[in-house]
Amino acid sequence: MAVLEEFFAEVRHEVDATLDKLIPDARVAPIRLHEAIRWSVFAGGKRIRPAILIASGRTFGVSTADLLYTAAAVEMIHTYSLIHDDLPSMDDDDLRRGRATCHKQFGEATAILAGDALQTLAFKALADNIHLTAETRVRLISLISQASGTPNGMVSGQQLDLDGEGNELSIADLEQIHRQKTGALIRASAIAGAAIGNATGDEMATIESYAVKLGLLFQITDDLLDVTAATETLGKTAGKDASSSKATYPGHYGVKATQVMAAKISIEALNDLSTIRRDTTVLADLTAFVVKRKN
Amino acid sequence: MAVLEEFFAEVRHEVDATLDKLIPDARVAPIRLHEAIRWSVFAGGKRIRPAILIASGRTFGVSTADLLYTAAAVEMIHTYSLIHDDLPSMDDDDLRRGRATCHKQFGEATAILAGDALQTLAFKALADNIHLTAETRVRLISLISQASGTPNGMVSGQQLDLDGEGNELSIADLEQIHRQKTGALIRASAIAGAAIGNATGDEMATIESYAVKLGLLFQITDDLLDVTAATETLGKTAGKDASSSKATYPGHYGVKATQVMAAKISIEALNDLSTIRRDTTVLADLTAFVVKRKN
Repeated sequence: MAVLEEFFAEVRHEVDATLDKLIPDARVAPIRLHEAIRWSVFAGGKRIRPAILIASGRTFGVSTADLLYTAAAVEMIHTYSLIHDDLPSMDDDDLRRGRATCHKQFGEATAILAGDALQTLAFKALADNIHLTAETRVRLISLISQASGTPNGMVSGQQLDLDGEGNELSIADLEQIHRQKTGALIRASAIAGAAIGNATGDEMATIESYAVKLGLLFQITDDLLDVTAATETLGKTAGKDASSSKATYPGHYGVKATQVMAAKISIEALNDLSTIRRDTTVLADLTAFVVKRKN
Repeated sequence: MAVLEEFFAEVRHEVDATLDKLIPDARVAPIRLHEAIRWSVFAGGKRIRPAILIASGRTFGVSTADLLYTAAAVEMIHTYSLIHDDLPSMDDDDLRRGRATCHKQFGEATAILAGDALQTLAFKALADNIHLTAETRVRLISLISQASGTPNGMVSGQQLDLDGEGNELSIADLEQIHRQKTGALIRASAIAGAAIGNATGDEMATIESYAVKLGLLFQITDDLLDVTAATETLGKTAGKDASSSKATYPGHYGVKATQVMAAKISIEALNDLSTIRRDTTVLADLTAFVVKRKN
């Protein structure tokens, strides 16, 4: 996994430099807003979605330079969703990525606006990406807006999650929430890389199948970490799901059976990759990483 | 002005039909989210931004059909900003467009998500607009994201407004807030219509000059209405600015001088229009309407 660690370090370095370029400087007015945006964006996130997008794009022969705006856009959308999810009227969380949440640091109003502005900046980055043709840009904006909105994206998943709190959910309900809330943007990240690389129809179908499994795997391991990891390792409040009676995989199946399930899904995901006639090593390593991650 | 009333009725009919198509049905899950979005979008808004966009586009020879997605997108962004501005941590308003605000009706969490999803739907509509070339679509997405984001758009204007509450603001500060918070999206609406119509560089410059004045005029008359109109005519809480000690034009100059200023700016805006060698009747009527509006 040493190669993967290098890959992550590189992604982080390049994506952070791109984010720094795309987000207004903290000295530019309104300073409080830009400080709040930067507080949340540069809080040491793992940049998993950019890593998936860049790994997928490289698999289909795209240079990192041509992937960075899209990778940064996906990370901005992810970060905006974290800022809004942490708000008092939503998950009401004080700690995120090991530091105070945006509203704890800057107040609710600024946190709402920081999330709003990050979403806008993401679509601006996608539109202004001169590395890609206009056709590819609108294809990516359509893909990413579908994945992050409603009725089958991140925002609708968050609403389903809210609606389900305190209720007894079926496993089908639970999977639908996860497929939208976390899975959709993970999936879009993998697909975006392949789309930028002009993958064939067959390859796109395989990447989609792989990406669905990767997204599910990501949520299952997230649920597992909430049960098994300590708050300091996690960088956010651990045990939050149980205390708020949220539906989770370990809550439904128990920790042991959930771990077995994760292993099974990761094998299926790797099987998908093995049918693509390209070098899928990094995507395979990434999949293994998601299963084994500690935060 | 009978022609303008017909124009407004037509815009309203066509834009509402387009919005109805672009926003998920209220029977689609998550129902609460889609009900909340529709509650705010179909609350009887005047559709002024779509009207400006369509008037501008028609001036440059574009059919209404080719303008509707863009007009609907601008209205979705405007409505998302109203939903978020009304939240308890922001302006804390209970009444909007004559009915309960989104969070009053559906709760804060759903209102935040409804706003988020509306912004996403707006960019999706712009990306999926098959009436226009991919080049025009990315140009519009760039234009509208710049106008609605930060550091010179609607969201940064809202932050400046928050930062300024309770402080003594100079008239330059006040104008900067208005230019961003309300002016930027009004301006983008006028420019978008001309851009879709492939206006020449000179024409674009004139439309921009006109649009800046229209945006300013809109904010000045908004401030005047807050002082002079009753809550039932306005459809939102009147006298709100004074009670929250917000900086306003009438607060700075008095009502009479502000009315004179509005008249002067409207004449300058009409002068801009007179230099365009196209039929600008509808844009001119719209300008007069903004000065005389009652809500």
